[in-house]
Amino acid sequence: MKAFVYQGPGRKALEDRAIPAIAAPGDAVVRVVKTTICGTDLHILKGDVPTCAPGRILGHEGVGVIDQVGAGVTAFHAGDRVLISCISACGKCEYCRRGMYSHCTTGGWILGNAIDGTQAEYVRIPHADTSLYPIPAGADEEALVMLSDILPTGFECGVLNGKVAPGSTVAIVGAGPIGLAALLTAQFYSPAAIVMVDFDDNRLAVAKRFGATATVNAGSGNAADAVRKLTGGSGVDTAIEAVGVPGSFETCEDIVAPGGTIANVGVHGVKVDLHLERLWSHNITITTRLVDTATTPMLLKTVQSHKIDPKCMITHHFTLDRILDAYETFANAASTHALKVIIDV
Amino acid sequence: MKAFVYQGPGRKALEDRAIPAIAAPGDAVVRVVKTTICGTDLHILKGDVPTCAPGRILGHEGVGVIDQVGAGVTAFHAGDRVLISCISACGKCEYCRRGMYSHCTTGGWILGNAIDGTQAEYVRIPHADTSLYPIPAGADEEALVMLSDILPTGFECGVLNGKVAPGSTVAIVGAGPIGLAALLTAQFYSPAAIVMVDFDDNRLAVAKRFGATATVNAGSGNAADAVRKLTGGSGVDTAIEAVGVPGSFETCEDIVAPGGTIANVGVHGVKVDLHLERLWSHNITITTRLVDTATTPMLLKTVQSHKIDPKCMITHHFTLDRILDAYETFANAASTHALKVIIDV
Amino acid sequence: MKAFVYQGPGRKALEDRAIPAIAAPGDAVVRVVKTTICGTDLHILKGDVPTCAPGRILGHEGVGVIDQVGAGVTAFHAGDRVLISCISACGKCEYCRRGMYSHCTTGGWILGNAIDGTQAEYVRIPHADTSLYPIPAGADEEALVMLSDILPTGFECGVLNGKVAPGSTVAIVGAGPIGLAALLTAQFYSPAAIVMVDFDDNRLAVAKRFGATATVNAGSGNAADAVRKLTGGSGVDTAIEAVGVPGSFETCEDIVAPGGTIANVGVHGVKVDLHLERLWSHNITITTRLVDTATTPMLLKTVQSHKIDPKCMITHHFTLDRILDAYETFANAASTHALKVIIDV
Amino acid sequence: MKAFVYQGPGRKALEDRAIPAIAAPGDAVVRVVKTTICGTDLHILKGDVPTCAPGRILGHEGVGVIDQVGAGVTAFHAGDRVLISCISACGKCEYCRRGMYSHCTTGGWILGNAIDGTQAEYVRIPHADTSLYPIPAGADEEALVMLSDILPTGFECGVLNGKVAPGSTVAIVGAGPIGLAALLTAQFYSPAAIVMVDFDDNRLAVAKRFGATATVNAGSGNAADAVRKLTGGSGVDTAIEAVGVPGSFETCEDIVAPGGTIANVGVHGVKVDLHLERLWSHNITITTRLVDTATTPMLLKTVQSHKIDPKCMITHHFTLDRILDAYETFANAASTHALKVIIDV
Repeated sequence: MKAFVYQGPGRKALEDRAIPAIAAPGDAVVRVVKTTICGTDLHILKGDVPTCAPGRILGHEGVGVIDQVGAGVTAFHAGDRVLISCISACGKCEYCRRGMYSHCTTGGWILGNAIDGTQAEYVRIPHADTSLYPIPAGADEEALVMLSDILPTGFECGVLNGKVAPGSTVAIVGAGPIGLAALLTAQFYSPAAIVMVDFDDNRLAVAKRFGATATVNAGSGNAADAVRKLTGGSGVDTAIEAVGVPGSFETCEDIVAPGGTIANVGVHGVKVDLHLERLWSHNITITTRLVDTATTPMLLKTVQSHKIDPKCMITHHFTLDRILDAYETFANAASTHALKVIIDV
Repeated sequence: MKAFVYQGPGRKALEDRAIPAIAAPGDAVVRVVKTTICGTDLHILKGDVPTCAPGRILGHEGVGVIDQVGAGVTAFHAGDRVLISCISACGKCEYCRRGMYSHCTTGGWILGNAIDGTQAEYVRIPHADTSLYPIPAGADEEALVMLSDILPTGFECGVLNGKVAPGSTVAIVGAGPIGLAALLTAQFYSPAAIVMVDFDDNRLAVAKRFGATATVNAGSGNAADAVRKLTGGSGVDTAIEAVGVPGSFETCEDIVAPGGTIANVGVHGVKVDLHLERLWSHNITITTRLVDTATTPMLLKTVQSHKIDPKCMITHHFTLDRILDAYETFANAASTHALKVIIDV
Repeated sequence: MKAFVYQGPGRKALEDRAIPAIAAPGDAVVRVVKTTICGTDLHILKGDVPTCAPGRILGHEGVGVIDQVGAGVTAFHAGDRVLISCISACGKCEYCRRGMYSHCTTGGWILGNAIDGTQAEYVRIPHADTSLYPIPAGADEEALVMLSDILPTGFECGVLNGKVAPGSTVAIVGAGPIGLAALLTAQFYSPAAIVMVDFDDNRLAVAKRFGATATVNAGSGNAADAVRKLTGGSGVDTAIEAVGVPGSFETCEDIVAPGGTIANVGVHGVKVDLHLERLWSHNITITTRLVDTATTPMLLKTVQSHKIDPKCMITHHFTLDRILDAYETFANAASTHALKVIIDV
Repeated sequence: MKAFVYQGPGRKALEDRAIPAIAAPGDAVVRVVKTTICGTDLHILKGDVPTCAPGRILGHEGVGVIDQVGAGVTAFHAGDRVLISCISACGKCEYCRRGMYSHCTTGGWILGNAIDGTQAEYVRIPHADTSLYPIPAGADEEALVMLSDILPTGFECGVLNGKVAPGSTVAIVGAGPIGLAALLTAQFYSPAAIVMVDFDDNRLAVAKRFGATATVNAGSGNAADAVRKLTGGSGVDTAIEAVGVPGSFETCEDIVAPGGTIANVGVHGVKVDLHLERLWSHNITITTRLVDTATTPMLLKTVQSHKIDPKCMITHHFTLDRILDAYETFANAASTHALKVIIDV
């Protein structure tokens, strides 16, 4: 089969590989129908993700059709159309029982990282019963690719952890795909204001179209001042960090109101300054989270009932043959205006 | 009347002052019966609390008897015995309605700070209806002095924010009065383990007596390693920071288990390093809080029903005449083994 | 002044009365600008509310202008435009501190019930600081009359207690003003389905216009069966009872899914059958609540940010002179299609 | 093997049966070491549980040793010592993912009911990975038999659903094994008062010994009046129904304070009267629940850390040979004072 392979820092190729086989009773082999590229894949290609060794097939998102299942799989059968979660969860360990699938002792984010992933014609999914989701009849499968990772990430790490509520005020720092996913799902809770902060005017324009009530270009002076001004000086109830650098986290520290929450979504490479000399008395909460995809069934319901249209995140389409072009397009988002690209397999 | 006055950095005295009068319809004047000294008072004396100007009568804890009330006070009458909260709350502003009394727009921690306090024969209490609590008949008033500040602080900022739960594991970094208050109130929720961390063997011995299941002297090597070893390598569900320096906060970062909470209680003077490069994916929560004393009615019930005996915190007694000695004793806790000192007025 | 007075069962009149005066330091006298009629007022007129004695000026909803305030009032001044809450709350008692304003020991629902109400040119409001809300500049005051009672009732007793959530399924039994208020505010949380049940096709048509995803006319056979069929047989996560008779409560018992909630909003005159022989093992929750209006500030924010337009509830307008006609119109809602009528004072 | 078999209403015997075999990849066969008898077993013997057909081996509690496991079992191996949960949970279905194991679509309470149970030398456990719990080294296995059903039932259905909290007031109506299990586990949360209500003075004496702060014999007049008097007239924050008859549920309705919760634990055979004509405005919550045993890991930690000693529930011991005597003793608890009897297999 064809598969997109990380060959070491800066090196990648579409290779021929053997179709994966069932390796454990809980496994399923899925024929991939559609997949996509995540910002994390770009990090892997740079060599920044040590858990991902050269030779790995990348990709942790997608929809497909069950090809075969192991003896222990009870929820799925060959021919079932499925949504693949970026998180593999055994459903049995202490973390899984708490809904913290991201910390599953034999799973977590392993797909396209510690084991081969979805940017291929077939993929082996361990713990299939609790890592795949049946696709409802009549669903738009392309839209559902957004439910593998990006929508639950924005929703769980940003919106739920950030306790977005009716009438509340929200700022999202970072209008990339993840920030926009938080923007879309924040609207489930009818906040009074959602201020989007970014350096890229195109992304801020997209944010406006996606429901932001105000935007702040962080390049033109002090973003924190601008956000505070937009909230009558008091700051926001929820500040969502969706970039992953010290500056954007500190912006969140500067704009969170007393009693508010900073929900970190970004993947950070270095430590940040936490200004406890000011914040110790502000009754704030800071949260971190690797997406658990525990809300996938709920998100499926919101898509099926048209409360959200994840398809608006999709800007480009490619076939698997042209996945190198897809990476090129996705990696140059500033010029291509790419948000999410669909790879038809 | 006699009153203990901050006269500027390093200078303090017992002065003669006029008895305070009702200044607003919501005020009460309380004849102080017992008060105490807080670590914050020592900070003020050093000049570290800019909101507190020279000439201020210190003290934000105590019990007393209502001397007179303003026209708008309905819950109290002259002669009522009352517990004084360290936090003044109007009960009307947006923060008070959310139970965030510490951020009351016309109150908060003002007593012995922005207005004259309780280390005197009389004190004026603004917003009396919502800042005083009736003392139940037969209560031990000395024990209740611990409910003005220290017990609600340990409980709200440490135990409640830290989500201590039956069967969970807790570490408290800092075995001073506040850390010990967290230790006492954490036991309301029957955690499986409470590990106490400090540099002072005497305080650790007190902690053992107060219910700690294990202690770690932070002086003898790596405290975080010791705590992790005590929890089978996994770290604690709740890490309570009760010191207020970068090192102890970083210890909390090192010992919090995935899915756990760092509840900051300490008053910090400088920023700390937040290691998001490691913690971004650990699904942790960090909280800060200035005590709201919203739980005072509940704590009163636990004292009355003998679920807790706050009196164990009291190590020394002085009369108001000897308050300078009391400060001396309290300031030298390492040698005097003082926890809380009672000033009989 | 002119005032609408309950004169005993079946008797009512527009009388001349003295303008009320400040009676306690916490009082305000408000010049009423707009008021409305509640279903409860009809119950009083029939003699069904024993706490309301003949001679009482009715009305517990409205907006107005502060005329004068008592010495203890700090949040309002003469000339301020205010929203009047149907619940008077002292803000000090144990219930008020828990946000249970409906059970305030010196307040609760007393307006137009135990004390004179808002269907008059002036009304005295006790505990003014915590029972009135400032009207934001530029607000549509007519819309805000819906925030005195009906919107917080539907929201607090129905939607919040019913734990409506994104992607969940909701049924509301009763499409009168209260049921419709629950329908409007349920949409804050983006449920997948809201099924409205009533006997009146006009009201069901209104419900459709207000956002119901399906309607069931309870007259045509078994409503519970119809609701279960609409939810694929599983029943609803939230069943809101908005009528107040045994039959509609039992419909809720028949349609609530395992793990779901029945949120009672209706005012009941007789007991109901609770089928514990079936429900004991269904992991359900049943809640009751007299509205606390604790969410009024939040609802104001949702109105100001256009997340909801309460004005859609208003079907008729009258002047105070014609309040008897207004009662006639409101009492014959089946033929007049009245939902809420505005009385301009 | 020897097995205790329900042979139809009123008929029971110790029979010889074949040792069960693995029937599905997720199964385990467990050699039973200790089991016990539940009140539900008595109901089955009377013919009151239609899901349980004659010929069934009874028993849904116990500890044992893994004899063999199916191909899909990953968490256990032959020789492992395990606690058997009364609830079988697949860990995969929508209910299991919500922690509602009692409603597992292919499990729930099936053991000793729809499939053969634990009152035998061996038992087959479906969904073994998520229905068995490893016994910690050094644990008292006899004590752990109480964690199969009775402790999680009292804790989840009574204490957790009842929101028992520090300083709160609790009444438990029914001092049988389940009520006593609620009493023991309520103390995890340090309520100010726990009033126990029953007709049996012996059980009330046991309740006192187990930590009840007061007892009321329901035979001597009006139990509700007595409970209200004990709480200063206001009623209790939490009323736990642990009998399962209309009278005891109505006692709970009479004693629950405004804002309080009635947590139903009892198994009811007929409907009860719900007095909504009074309770509609009392802001109360009523919950029902079939135990999910979702808290078993947490309860294991509280036992291991000596926060609770479940062994105090055990009054009698028998060998499997004498299980008919054990049933006789358990069925005549009023005279034998039996709470829980241990069957050594």
